[in-house]
Amino acid sequence: MQLLKERILAEGQLFPGNILKVDRFLNHQVDVNLLYEIGKEFRRIYADSDINKILTIEASGIGIACVAAMHFDCPVVFAKKSKSINISNDFYQCDVMSYTHNNLNHVIVSKDFIGPEDKVLIIDDFLANGCALGGLIEIVKTAGAELVGCGIVIEKGFQAGGKALRDRGIRVESLAIVESMNPETGEIIFG
Amino acid sequence: MQLLKERILAEGQLFPGNILKVDRFLNHQVDVNLLYEIGKEFRRIYADSDINKILTIEASGIGIACVAAMHFDCPVVFAKKSKSINISNDFYQCDVMSYTHNNLNHVIVSKDFIGPEDKVLIIDDFLANGCALGGLIEIVKTAGAELVGCGIVIEKGFQAGGKALRDRGIRVESLAIVESMNPETGEIIFG
Repeated sequence: MQLLKERILAEGQLFPGNILKVDRFLNHQVDVNLLYEIGKEFRRIYADSDINKILTIEASGIGIACVAAMHFDCPVVFAKKSKSINISNDFYQCDVMSYTHNNLNHVIVSKDFIGPEDKVLIIDDFLANGCALGGLIEIVKTAGAELVGCGIVIEKGFQAGGKALRDRGIRVESLAIVESMNPETGEIIFG
Repeated sequence: MQLLKERILAEGQLFPGNILKVDRFLNHQVDVNLLYEIGKEFRRIYADSDINKILTIEASGIGIACVAAMHFDCPVVFAKKSKSINISNDFYQCDVMSYTHNNLNHVIVSKDFIGPEDKVLIIDDFLANGCALGGLIEIVKTAGAELVGCGIVIEKGFQAGGKALRDRGIRVESLAIVESMNPETGEIIFG
């Protein structure tokens, strides 16, 4: 998606440790007009699918998913992060390691909001090692729902997550794939 | 806002301890068509104001703020919750007590994204004791920005937050104000 790549080049910030900060327009300050175009692009890519639910994970996925959902005319469900294991039987849950924050989150989704009747698109801001996405996919499968695919805003193509998921036969569509980035020169190369 | 009140009556769930769960349409599963109408109503109420930034707090405020921002044609900034005090000088920060989760959050907003040039509308899903809103207001004032007002989806009118803020001269507009609710009978009375 050209508009997105141009924005990453103009306003993304690189830091050592493979960190690409897009705080100016995606996950701290949010340009909702860009989100609207991102949502439209997800709809175009998944035009052939009768998606009836979008699943994401708090926090930065929520805005992207909610604006995208306007193009799909379907509800969003956002998975919640919980510090403690939820002993209730009312939730699907899985563990997700966050390398960004270096902690383990228990991720929960109420059984009321996802089930065998659902055709699910998972949306998230980043795909790197795929931990968060893997957790959401596990929840979709446990719920007996159909996973139509994943819509990612920025994929770090040099990390293993995208390939591993595609090798499992999962449809992963990323609007910008960063193949390499150099914090010393500021260079970002897209795939 | 009639549409919202009808939805709360139809799908809200009451639990002991003044808990009103609106997980079915607002803060776990999200009806984005309702969010669109909520945003339109905030725009109608604040039509006379030249708001150029919407501030909210993760997680459940983000979707509401992002869809509302489409009516205001302005960016959203969402404050982040952090377990640890951030020692960086790059952030405005404050402490917010969460009664829902019974913990203290350090709330941070980058100094890059709010400043004296901003006319800010704060949006959040709930107003009860006003702790989260108070923290965001403190950040707006510290940044030297102008606080135009607050837009709340559901206010618990029987808790002290709304009155305390209005007594300080802050404009608080709530789309549904619950004056009383009874978990035994399921009765919800709006103000």
